[in-house]
Amino acid sequence: MNPRDNLKRLLAPRHLAFIGGRSMARALKRCAEGGFAGELWLVNPQHAELEGVPCIARVADLPCAPDAVFIATHREQTLASVAELAALGAGGAICYASGFAETGAEGAALQSELLAAAGDMALLGPNCYGLLDYLHGAALWPVAHGGRRVEKGVAVLTQSGNFAYNLSMSDRSLPVAYMASVGNQAQLGVAELMDVLLDEPRVTAIGLHLEGLRNVPGFARAAHKALEKGVPIIALKTGVSQIGAQLALSHTSSLAGSDALYDALFERLGVIRVSGPVSFMETLKAAACGTLPAGPGLIALACSGGDAGLIADYAEANGLRLPALDDRQRHALAQILPGYANVANPLDFTTAIWGDAESLRHMLDIALRSAADAALLVLDYPGEGTGERPQCDLLLELFCEALERHGKAGFIASAFPELLPAAARDRLHARGVAALQGVEDGLAAWGRIAAYRQRRDRLLERGESALVPLCPAPVSDGRTLDEWQSKQAMRAFGLPVPQGILSTPERAPGDAETLGYPLALKAVSAQLPHKTEAGGVALDLRDAEALRRALDEMRQRLAASAPGVAFERVLLERMARPPLAELIVGIKRENGFGLALVIGAGGILVELLKDSRSLLLPTNDAAIRDALLSLRSAPLLTGFRGRPAADLEALVAAIRAVADYACENAGQLLELDVNPLLVSADGAGAVDALIRLGND
Amino acid sequence: MNPRDNLKRLLAPRHLAFIGGRSMARALKRCAEGGFAGELWLVNPQHAELEGVPCIARVADLPCAPDAVFIATHREQTLASVAELAALGAGGAICYASGFAETGAEGAALQSELLAAAGDMALLGPNCYGLLDYLHGAALWPVAHGGRRVEKGVAVLTQSGNFAYNLSMSDRSLPVAYMASVGNQAQLGVAELMDVLLDEPRVTAIGLHLEGLRNVPGFARAAHKALEKGVPIIALKTGVSQIGAQLALSHTSSLAGSDALYDALFERLGVIRVSGPVSFMETLKAAACGTLPAGPGLIALACSGGDAGLIADYAEANGLRLPALDDRQRHALAQILPGYANVANPLDFTTAIWGDAESLRHMLDIALRSAADAALLVLDYPGEGTGERPQCDLLLELFCEALERHGKAGFIASAFPELLPAAARDRLHARGVAALQGVEDGLAAWGRIAAYRQRRDRLLERGESALVPLCPAPVSDGRTLDEWQSKQAMRAFGLPVPQGILSTPERAPGDAETLGYPLALKAVSAQLPHKTEAGGVALDLRDAEALRRALDEMRQRLAASAPGVAFERVLLERMARPPLAELIVGIKRENGFGLALVIGAGGILVELLKDSRSLLLPTNDAAIRDALLSLRSAPLLTGFRGRPAADLEALVAAIRAVADYACENAGQLLELDVNPLLVSADGAGAVDALIRLGND
Repeated sequence: MNPRDNLKRLLAPRHLAFIGGRSMARALKRCAEGGFAGELWLVNPQHAELEGVPCIARVADLPCAPDAVFIATHREQTLASVAELAALGAGGAICYASGFAETGAEGAALQSELLAAAGDMALLGPNCYGLLDYLHGAALWPVAHGGRRVEKGVAVLTQSGNFAYNLSMSDRSLPVAYMASVGNQAQLGVAELMDVLLDEPRVTAIGLHLEGLRNVPGFARAAHKALEKGVPIIALKTGVSQIGAQLALSHTSSLAGSDALYDALFERLGVIRVSGPVSFMETLKAAACGTLPAGPGLIALACSGGDAGLIADYAEANGLRLPALDDRQRHALAQILPGYANVANPLDFTTAIWGDAESLRHMLDIALRSAADAALLVLDYPGEGTGERPQCDLLLELFCEALERHGKAGFIASAFPELLPAAARDRLHARGVAALQGVEDGLAAWGRIAAYRQRRDRLLERGESALVPLCPAPVSDGRTLDEWQSKQAMRAFGLPVPQGILSTPERAPGDAETLGYPLALKAVSAQLPHKTEAGGVALDLRDAEALRRALDEMRQRLAASAPGVAFERVLLERMARPPLAELIVGIKRENGFGLALVIGAGGILVELLKDSRSLLLPTNDAAIRDALLSLRSAPLLTGFRGRPAADLEALVAAIRAVADYACENAGQLLELDVNPLLVSADGAGAVDALIRLGND
Repeated sequence: MNPRDNLKRLLAPRHLAFIGGRSMARALKRCAEGGFAGELWLVNPQHAELEGVPCIARVADLPCAPDAVFIATHREQTLASVAELAALGAGGAICYASGFAETGAEGAALQSELLAAAGDMALLGPNCYGLLDYLHGAALWPVAHGGRRVEKGVAVLTQSGNFAYNLSMSDRSLPVAYMASVGNQAQLGVAELMDVLLDEPRVTAIGLHLEGLRNVPGFARAAHKALEKGVPIIALKTGVSQIGAQLALSHTSSLAGSDALYDALFERLGVIRVSGPVSFMETLKAAACGTLPAGPGLIALACSGGDAGLIADYAEANGLRLPALDDRQRHALAQILPGYANVANPLDFTTAIWGDAESLRHMLDIALRSAADAALLVLDYPGEGTGERPQCDLLLELFCEALERHGKAGFIASAFPELLPAAARDRLHARGVAALQGVEDGLAAWGRIAAYRQRRDRLLERGESALVPLCPAPVSDGRTLDEWQSKQAMRAFGLPVPQGILSTPERAPGDAETLGYPLALKAVSAQLPHKTEAGGVALDLRDAEALRRALDEMRQRLAASAPGVAFERVLLERMARPPLAELIVGIKRENGFGLALVIGAGGILVELLKDSRSLLLPTNDAAIRDALLSLRSAPLLTGFRGRPAADLEALVAAIRAVADYACENAGQLLELDVNPLLVSADGAGAVDALIRLGND
C-alpha cells in the first residue's frame, strides 16, 4: 500500500495496537471507554496481562496488520517494532520515544534508520506525544486527556507535546476532531498531515502551533488546497522575538526563517495568524461549527450599556461592521423595551424583559430582521447560587431558535471568559452556534473568521497562492556585480534603467557629448559597494566643464577613500527626472525558506516609516500591486495632495522584472538591491542596483 | 460631620441599615454570613420580620445613626428615606432606584432634590448597583455576589452595574477590597471615591471601568495623589470607537470627550490603560499583592520548549527584559538538567526533574540567583483525574519558597487561562505571589506593572501631573483673527514669527525695500482662512519686479476665487530659511474636558504618518519636550542622516508660547492653528497662524 493510503488508515483506524507497558494498557482502556468501535491490542513480551488487558507477546502474533499503532518503548525497541510493523503491513506507527535527532548526531543517525525501517508505513514522531482522533475515538496518547468524541471539529497540529497536552486539558469546549503532536517530523510533518486532513470533510478548520516550518513548499501546497476548499488555517507561530527565534532553532531544529517571512507566507495563503493560546482556541471555536459568515456585518445584542460599549469598541477594532437599525426596527423595539433602553446596534435590550420569553422572542425577531451577516448575543451566567441560570438558559435557547428562524450565522460571547459555563457551551455547539469566552477575544476571533471568505475570494483571484515558493539549496558567498553589470543583468528581464554609457575617465568627455547633459557620473567597481560614501557619485552635471571638474574631484576623493580601487571605469547616465515616489526593492535569501522580494518606501521614509512588504518568490503582478498599495506611503503613488498618480503599471512591471531575474537565478542569488527605484507619472526605473551571487 | 468624614464612615462602617423588602433581608443576611462585625438593621414599615430578620418600621426608630445604608425602594420613597437619614446623621446612603437623571428632565429634577436632601451625608447613586466592601464584610448590594473578605486588595469603580455584577461573579481570584457601581454620580463620582480610597493603605491598586469622566480636574487631582502614593490606577475606558462614543454619551450622559484626550489624560497621570475585562482583571491581579517589581527584568521558567517560546515572544512584546544566564548559572544548570534542556532565559527545565523536590529546589536557586527584578514560572495544572496535581502543587510551593529565599517579586502564569485552578490561585495570593491566567495576558499584565515604578518616577520628575487641567465653560462660536492678528497675539507670549510689515497693495513696494528681499507676500483677511488655496500667498519674491507681478496676479486670483473679500491689506515677511523639520501645533477645545495642545509632524508626513501627540493644558516644558521626542518623526529633530540636530530648546519655547497664550485665553479660545511651525538648527518660528475666539 502506498504511504498516503497508509496515512489515511492511521487517521481512520479500524484497529489499534499499543506497544509498551502499564501506561499503554491504560491508554488502550481509555480508547475502549471513549467509544472506539474496532479491535484493540496490547503488545508486551513480558506480561500475559496488564491492568486487566491481555497482552500479545510479539508484533508478529497480532491477528492482522493494525491500522494504527502507538509505540511507547525505549528508542532501540521502537526501531525494532517499527521494522516488524512495516513488515506486517501496518498502516501507521506513532513513536513516543525521544533520543533521536533532537539529541545530536548519534540520535539523528538512529532517526534515519527509523525512517528507513518504516518504509511505506506512516510514521508520526519520534519524540512526539501522539495523536488524538476524536472522530473515531482513537486516543493514541500516553496519558489522560480531557476530550471526547465529536461529529465534526478542528484539527490541531503542534510542534510542542506540552502544548497539545495542555490544550487537551483546557476547559474551553473546543470541538477537536484530531490533535497531533508532530515531534521530530522524521516522516510525517505538518504539511503532509494537513494535506490528508483536508480530505476529511468533518475537519472544519485546522489549527497549527508552529515554532518553524521544515517544508515551506509542502506547507504552501497544503495551505493552497485549504484555501481552495474554504477550510480556514489558524496559525500560532512563535519565535517572533529574537530570543524566541533562537529558542525555536534549538528546540525543534527547524530552520526558523525570519518571522517577517512567515507573515509573507501566511498572507499569501490566507492563513490566519493569532498571537496566543487564547486567540488560537477562540478563533478555532468561531470556525469549528463549519458555517462561516459571509462577511463582517453584525447585529449585536446585550442586556447592559456597559456590554454594548465593549461590543462597539471591539467590533470596530476587528473590522466588523454594526449596521444601524432601520426606522421600522427602532419603532418596533421602542414598543417593547423601556424608555431608557438604547435602541441602536449594538442593542442594549436591558434586563427589563429578562425572563419574559415572549418579549425576548419578539425583540430577537425584530433585531435579526437585518441584512447583517451574523448575530451576536453577549451573555454572562452568574454563579450557581444566584438562581439566575435558568433565565440565561432561556435566553440562550431563544437566541438559537431565532438564528434558525432567520437563517443567520451567530455566536454568543460572555463578557468575562469564565461566565459561559461548559453546559451552556455544549448546548450552543450542538446547535451550531459558536460559544466564545470573553467579549474582547470573542469579537477578535469572529472578526478573523468573518474576514475569511472575502479574503479567500481575493486571494484565489490574485492567483499567487497557487505558485509554490522556491526553496533553493544553500550556496556559499561569492562575488558582487558592479552597478553596470547589475543593471544590465536585470535590464535583460525588463527593468528600465537610465540611458547610459560605460566609459573611462579619459573617454568620458566624448561619451558625454554623445549622451547629452545633464548627466550623472559614477565610478564603477565591484569593490565600491558604497560608492556614494566613498565619493564616487556626482549628480546633475550640466556641461563639459562641470564633468571635467567632477572627474578630477572624484579621482582625488577615491584615491583618499578607497586607495586600493583603480579609477578605471565610470558610468555616465542621463539624469532622472524628479520622481513622484522613491522606492527600495530588494531580494533576501533565507536558506530553507526561500527568496523574498522586499518592496519598501525609499528616501527619507524608509527610516521614519519602516514601511515595507515582503513577497515570497515566485509572485505575480497582482500580488506586487497589492503589496505596493498596502504600503503606508501608498498615497504617494495614488495622487497625493493634488499631484498626478504614479504609473503603477510601469512600477509593477519594473518590480516584476527584478522578481523574474531572481527566480531565473535563484540557485545563485544571495542578495539584490535596487535603491532607489523611481516612479513618475509615466514610467519607473532603477537608478542604482547591486547584485551579489554565490558560488554554485 | 463634613461630607468627607461621612464618606469615610460609609467606607468603614460600624453598622449597616437596609431599607426595602425581602431582597434587603437577604442582603443583610449575606453580610452577617460574610463576617460583618457590626450591627445590622432592616427598615421596613409593612412587616415585623422578613426572612427571619426583624424589621424596624421607620428610619427614625433606628437605635443610632447608621454609618452605611442601602436603600432599595422606589424613587419617591428613596428621596424620603435619604432626607430622614440625613436628619438622623447617617454616614452614607446608597440609592439603588433608577428613574432619575438617566431618564430625562423630570428625573433630573428629582435627582437634584435627592442631592439636596442628602446634605452632608455621603450619597452613592442613584441608579447604581451598590458597594461591596470586602475589608469589612459590608456587602451593600442587592443580590448575591461571588466574593469574600480580604486583608487587602484592589478597589474597583465602575459606571456599569452589570460590569460590577459580572466581575463579582467572575472566577479569577482577584482580591477585591472595594467595588462600587457609581450609577448617576449625583454626589459621589469616580474622582471623589478615588480620593478617599487612596487614604486606605489596604487598597493596593484602583481599577476604573469608565464610559466617560464628568470631572476631569477632580480625576486629575485624585490620579496625581495616586501617583504620589505609588498606587497604580488601571483604567478600562470604553467609547474608543465612534459608535461606542455615541453609546457612552447616551448611556451615562457623561461628556465623552474624544478618546485621544483620555489617552493624553492617562499618559499625563501615569494611569495604566487596558483594553478589556481580562486585561483589567489580570493587571489588577498583578498589582494586587502590593509589592511592585522595580523594573522590567525577568527570569522565566517553564517545563517545555513550547512555553519557553511563548514567554520569549510575550516578554519582548511587553517591554520585559530576559537577561541572559551567566556562565556560572549555565554550568550549574547543565549539571542537573538533561542534555536536551535549553539552558537559557527563559529556561526550559524539562519534565525530567518533575516531582523531584531536591533537584527542583536546586534549579530554582540557581535560576533565581539573578539580577532580574522578578521571576516567572509557567505552570499548567492538568485535570483532576490525571493524578498530576500534587506535583504541580509541589513546584508551586518550591517556587514561592525560592522567591522568599531570594527576596524576589514573582508570579505564576498558566499557559492556558483555565489551567490554574482556584485552590492554586488562593495559595499563591496568600504568599503574595500573583496568579495570572494565560501566559499572553499574564505577561502583558506584568509588563504594565513592571513599567509602573520607572514611569512614575519619570512623571513625578516631569511635574506635569501636578498641574490641574483647565476645564473652561462652553462658549458659542465667535470671530476669526486674521494671520497678522493671530501672530501678534501669540508673539506677545513669546512665539517667534518672521520679521514682517502689515502693509497695503499700494504701500507694499516701499515697505518691501525697508524689509529687504527675498520675501513672502500674503493677503490678510479674517475672511480668507484658506488663503493659499484662494491664491493669496506668493513666496520667495526676490526683487521689486517679482513683487509687482505677484501683487497683480494676487489681485486677479482673489477677485476670481473670493470676490467678496477686499484686497486691502497684505503682509510682507522675510522668507524663512529651509527648516530641518516642519511641525503643526494646534489647540483643540473639547467642552467638559478642557483644552488640548496637539503637536504633530507637518508637511508630507502629517498625512502619511498621522504622527501627533496631545497634551492637556496647562502643561510644561518637560512634557512638551517628551511629546516632541516621542513623535515617530522625532529622528528629524535629533540629527537625521548626518544633518544637524534641531534647536529643541527654541522649539519647546515656541510651543510653550502657544500653550501660554491658550491658557491665558482659555475662556474664549475655540481653536488655534500654527501651521507650519519651522525648526532649524538655531531657532524655531511660526510661518502661518490662525486663531478662532468664541463670544464670552
